[in-house]
Amino acid sequence: MKALVYHGPGKKAWEDVPDAQIQQPTDIVVRIDTTTICGTDLHILKGDVPAVTDGRILGHEGVGTVTEVGSAVSTVAVGDRVLLSCVSACGACSYCHQGLYAHCLADEGASGIGWIFGHLIDGTQAELVRVPFADNSVYKLPESVGDDSAIMLSDILPTSFEIGVRYGRVKPGDVVAVVGSGPIGLAAMMTAGLYGAARIIALDLDANRLDQALRFGATDAVNSGDADWRDQVLAMTDGLGVDVAIEAVGIPATFDACTKIVRPGGSIANVGVHGGPVELQLQDLWIMDLTITTGLVSTSTTPMLLKLVAQHKLEAEKFATHHFKLDEMMDAYDTFGRAAETNALKVVISR
Amino acid sequence: MKALVYHGPGKKAWEDVPDAQIQQPTDIVVRIDTTTICGTDLHILKGDVPAVTDGRILGHEGVGTVTEVGSAVSTVAVGDRVLLSCVSACGACSYCHQGLYAHCLADEGASGIGWIFGHLIDGTQAELVRVPFADNSVYKLPESVGDDSAIMLSDILPTSFEIGVRYGRVKPGDVVAVVGSGPIGLAAMMTAGLYGAARIIALDLDANRLDQALRFGATDAVNSGDADWRDQVLAMTDGLGVDVAIEAVGIPATFDACTKIVRPGGSIANVGVHGGPVELQLQDLWIMDLTITTGLVSTSTTPMLLKLVAQHKLEAEKFATHHFKLDEMMDAYDTFGRAAETNALKVVISR
Repeated sequence: MKALVYHGPGKKAWEDVPDAQIQQPTDIVVRIDTTTICGTDLHILKGDVPAVTDGRILGHEGVGTVTEVGSAVSTVAVGDRVLLSCVSACGACSYCHQGLYAHCLADEGASGIGWIFGHLIDGTQAELVRVPFADNSVYKLPESVGDDSAIMLSDILPTSFEIGVRYGRVKPGDVVAVVGSGPIGLAAMMTAGLYGAARIIALDLDANRLDQALRFGATDAVNSGDADWRDQVLAMTDGLGVDVAIEAVGIPATFDACTKIVRPGGSIANVGVHGGPVELQLQDLWIMDLTITTGLVSTSTTPMLLKLVAQHKLEAEKFATHHFKLDEMMDAYDTFGRAAETNALKVVISR
Repeated sequence: MKALVYHGPGKKAWEDVPDAQIQQPTDIVVRIDTTTICGTDLHILKGDVPAVTDGRILGHEGVGTVTEVGSAVSTVAVGDRVLLSCVSACGACSYCHQGLYAHCLADEGASGIGWIFGHLIDGTQAELVRVPFADNSVYKLPESVGDDSAIMLSDILPTSFEIGVRYGRVKPGDVVAVVGSGPIGLAAMMTAGLYGAARIIALDLDANRLDQALRFGATDAVNSGDADWRDQVLAMTDGLGVDVAIEAVGIPATFDACTKIVRPGGSIANVGVHGGPVELQLQDLWIMDLTITTGLVSTSTTPMLLKLVAQHKLEAEKFATHHFKLDEMMDAYDTFGRAAETNALKVVISR
């Protein structure tokens, strides 16, 4: 089969590799019909994730068709069209019992982290993929949900909803600020309304992205390059700050921005993947009754989000800005890697 | 009347000042029967809290007898023995309506912070004190609760319980680590059991304090000066870390220690008052599903804690290690300021 293989920092190739195979009775093999590229894949390619080693097939998002089923799998059969979650979960360990699948303790996740596709095991940017713990990690897709929508449920929508909106404790009437209007930020804006947010403020340095944000659920947009950006945000509240600030970039400046606009008693939900420390101004924040959260998606809300997508209550397909064939994988990476120029949100790559 | 007056960094005096008087219809005047000194008072004396200006009477803890009642006060009468909360609350603003009295927006709390005694208005280290918003800020004391116990309900017990134990989301069976075994840490250990913690691990650099911790509810003690302190803590869990880490000091090293012993999905509750920023290692923590909280006590749990003290379920009087008369205030400060030598926890100062 063909697959996108990582060969150390800066090096990748769409090349021939051995076919994916069943290894454990709880595995299935899936023929990839659609996959996509995540910002995390770009981080890996820069060498930021040393656990990913030379020879690893990348990708942790996928929609496909089951071609083989291990002897212990009971919920899917050959021919089923399935959504692959970015997180694999044994369903039996103490973390899985709490629904915190991101921290599944099973052997496949040697680090105790449920994100293993394209990280600790071969991933989904391939013609075939081995899927461990299939009964707890894949979802059968209704025909009405097309691949362009379904692929957004592998990672981006549950990540922003669980780690941004739910950890941020968004409640009816809240003013929510989303700092960063890239795909993860837009997915937070799209799902913040589910809990009745009254106002959803998009922040970004890029005017194009802010325009886009208004089409993804933001009610207001503030350019964080403006000298008075903070005053603009506070003016959209009672002057005390937003109820929830969602960090959707992963750098110190955006994390710090969240701490500057949140009200006493509010929440900061960090969704961004950080490469270094941030300075937390505890001399100001200790007194503020803040709740700061971090997290890796558990995909525990995937069934709910899938239902909302099927009901057209979430227009997930809007993220699909560019389309490629599997054998155009290198072009897809090029387009996604130059998102600032190409305005790519998610590149959809199909067989 | 006599009072302990702040005269700028490093300067204080027990001196004659005008008698406290009713200023607003919602005020009462209370004769102080018992007061105490808080670590925060020492911070103020170092000049760390610039909002406190020359001439301010210090102190935010007190038990006393009502001597005058404003025309709008309905819940207490002259002669009532009352507990004064460290936080004053109007009861009518949007934060009071949420029970977040620490952030009361009323005029007296110009900064939007409910801690005003000995900060923005004159405090309780005096023969008389004006108490604003009396109906929402004082509690009538049952005779069975002596002053040595009651005074611990002004600040220390609700602070550790609300900001440490409750914000830390301690639940039955949890392993809780309390980093810092001073009075605030001990109060967290004393109250962590209320939510059914299975194991309460005290940490400190001081062996005496660790011995004391075992008498205040800790089940285990670890000297954080030991080279293998972290391994010792992890060995008391399933190897993955504690469910809740409570920061009870207020310096970067203790905050950082909390991040090193908490398990994925766990909580860090910061109770310490910090004078500077801390470096948050988000490159490691972003993936850990942590909840980090900060806060100033709202004293919303004071009635509950008072009931538990009255039932002898919390031995609050154990914090009272030294006793002074009001006119020995300067000696009391000296003893409390040298707590490392005197082993003072709380110095109780009575008329």
